[in-house]
Amino acid sequence: MSTSEKSAVGAPGALMAAEIAEQPHVLRRILASYAEHLAPVVARLRSHDTRAVLLVARGTSDHAALYAKYLIETQLGLPTGLVSTSTYTGYDARPDLRGVVWIAVSQSGGSPDLVASTQIARDRGALTISLTNVDDSPLSEAAELRLPMLAGAEISVAATKTYSASLLWLWLLVRSWSGGDIDVAAGVPDWTAAALDRPEVAEVASRYRFVDRLVTTSRGFGYPTAREAALKLMETCYLSAHAFSGADLLHGPLAMVDEDRPVIVISPAGQGGRMLRPVLEQLAERGADVCLVAPRETVARSHARIPLPSGMDEQLAPIAQIVPLQQLALQLALSRHYDPDRPRGLNKVTRTT
Amino acid sequence: MSTSEKSAVGAPGALMAAEIAEQPHVLRRILASYAEHLAPVVARLRSHDTRAVLLVARGTSDHAALYAKYLIETQLGLPTGLVSTSTYTGYDARPDLRGVVWIAVSQSGGSPDLVASTQIARDRGALTISLTNVDDSPLSEAAELRLPMLAGAEISVAATKTYSASLLWLWLLVRSWSGGDIDVAAGVPDWTAAALDRPEVAEVASRYRFVDRLVTTSRGFGYPTAREAALKLMETCYLSAHAFSGADLLHGPLAMVDEDRPVIVISPAGQGGRMLRPVLEQLAERGADVCLVAPRETVARSHARIPLPSGMDEQLAPIAQIVPLQQLALQLALSRHYDPDRPRGLNKVTRTT
Repeated sequence: MSTSEKSAVGAPGALMAAEIAEQPHVLRRILASYAEHLAPVVARLRSHDTRAVLLVARGTSDHAALYAKYLIETQLGLPTGLVSTSTYTGYDARPDLRGVVWIAVSQSGGSPDLVASTQIARDRGALTISLTNVDDSPLSEAAELRLPMLAGAEISVAATKTYSASLLWLWLLVRSWSGGDIDVAAGVPDWTAAALDRPEVAEVASRYRFVDRLVTTSRGFGYPTAREAALKLMETCYLSAHAFSGADLLHGPLAMVDEDRPVIVISPAGQGGRMLRPVLEQLAERGADVCLVAPRETVARSHARIPLPSGMDEQLAPIAQIVPLQQLALQLALSRHYDPDRPRGLNKVTRTT
Repeated sequence: MSTSEKSAVGAPGALMAAEIAEQPHVLRRILASYAEHLAPVVARLRSHDTRAVLLVARGTSDHAALYAKYLIETQLGLPTGLVSTSTYTGYDARPDLRGVVWIAVSQSGGSPDLVASTQIARDRGALTISLTNVDDSPLSEAAELRLPMLAGAEISVAATKTYSASLLWLWLLVRSWSGGDIDVAAGVPDWTAAALDRPEVAEVASRYRFVDRLVTTSRGFGYPTAREAALKLMETCYLSAHAFSGADLLHGPLAMVDEDRPVIVISPAGQGGRMLRPVLEQLAERGADVCLVAPRETVARSHARIPLPSGMDEQLAPIAQIVPLQQLALQLALSRHYDPDRPRGLNKVTRTT
């Protein structure tokens, strides 16, 4: 199949390919226009006496929420949790949430459990904020304050551009809330463009053509990337792709890693990469086949490698880090004759209660 | 290999088998003696103006912490989060934690990241509580208040009795803190004894003899059981065992489930089981091979089944639910000629930073 056929409308993966490629453009659009949407939200947050932050999301958006949790813990120093919606929708928890900031993230804004738990949170006194890509969604109606993701319509079932857009929005939100400098984000669209279409992705897709189970790992700000990469590989290639934080991997699951189960290690520059060194050493001892996704200058032994742009800010790097892994999922799915735009058993809007 | 040979000291899995079997006894011991240890902790908690609860743990203990998160959200209505220690140990977060209750759970109490983050939390004003099985561990030294797990020495690398002991302790802690009735816990040792040595476990172990990847799922209070069962299968049988909450499974990973990837569904009585019904329906549509772990009276189609005792309280049921799944991991490991007491690549005390 030629490249032009692959990208033709209706060809397998054409939508996912186009939406991945669109990311630098989406990120530029957000940077150009976020301020007007964010200003009233940040004004409320800065006058709000916040005792804790709760985040609620599902699937890909849950990985964006996990990223926000790291940002909030490090930049704002507030106790932060990811909500299990079932405590609200199943077990009828009605906690006193005065002083709590509640952030709900969803591409569609349509999943009943997110809508119901956000309504309950608002009724119980939380300051509720939604971040959705579909305007006027039930979730944005339920929340007091709303942020528009501005990613443009996302049609492929496998979410890509709404993930990077969510990360950038959440970074802008936390950074503005903490009063920090946002200029460093100006580099994000170019980093993301530089991470697109790496020729090494095709080499790894070929190496993994017959793999049926693999592990992804990282630490700190890179860990949400490992989670999201695993989800993309599961939903488009039907692989058993298992994400672990590097520390959790050593607390048990390391036993299942052997020479026949490849490990994708996302090693950011900075502290996350330093924390991963003992993990890389133990993987080498176990004979694991490692694909290193890291800036070009990172020194570590590996069997395959996908280079990332140099000089990225560690907290913003996840926005560009995910791009070659989205493309790996796409290429691997196509090599197996699956259509990543229409994974078996999935719809674009998942409705859970 | 005869049963007596299997249980001989030094035989593969002998320690794990003995420690699994010991659980009703351990739980009885805790119920007989918890009050003196818990009273001063609960007195402090009830006079403490708590704004949020943070839990910190790794591996098996992290699943106990997740269980406690559900308990705290439903019984106490407090915002609750699971801590990413790397924000403290890697990114030097030093949040103001006055008003925060910090609960650290660890069998050994020795992992440096748990100790360091608990010291920081205490310095930053959190009311810190440790729950460890090793007395006078670095973690219990770091915390202001300490609870002894009282499980007795755990030698097998695969943790079993310290998991059920942790669940019971955390239930007793939350229930006493909320002022609720604790009499219902009196049934736990007998439920756990009734869950031991189910003959159906051997049938499932035989069915799964050649499986290399499977999925576990549940919802609500059963979800930590799904996570812990997957970890046991990973660390003793080297399977790709992947746990999802039923809702998260539908948001993407469902695509990878097909007729060749068995799914273990832990379906509690009560609300958790009701929330799982749409998940069971979608699994049936995808032709999944389902093993149902559920009370005998639960009506649902499945290909294999492990019955649980009837009449268990939904919030306490996880203590008995895990038992047949621990035994499944043990039997499956032995059938593959692995020694679950000494999984490859693991030590009893994992030291992460």
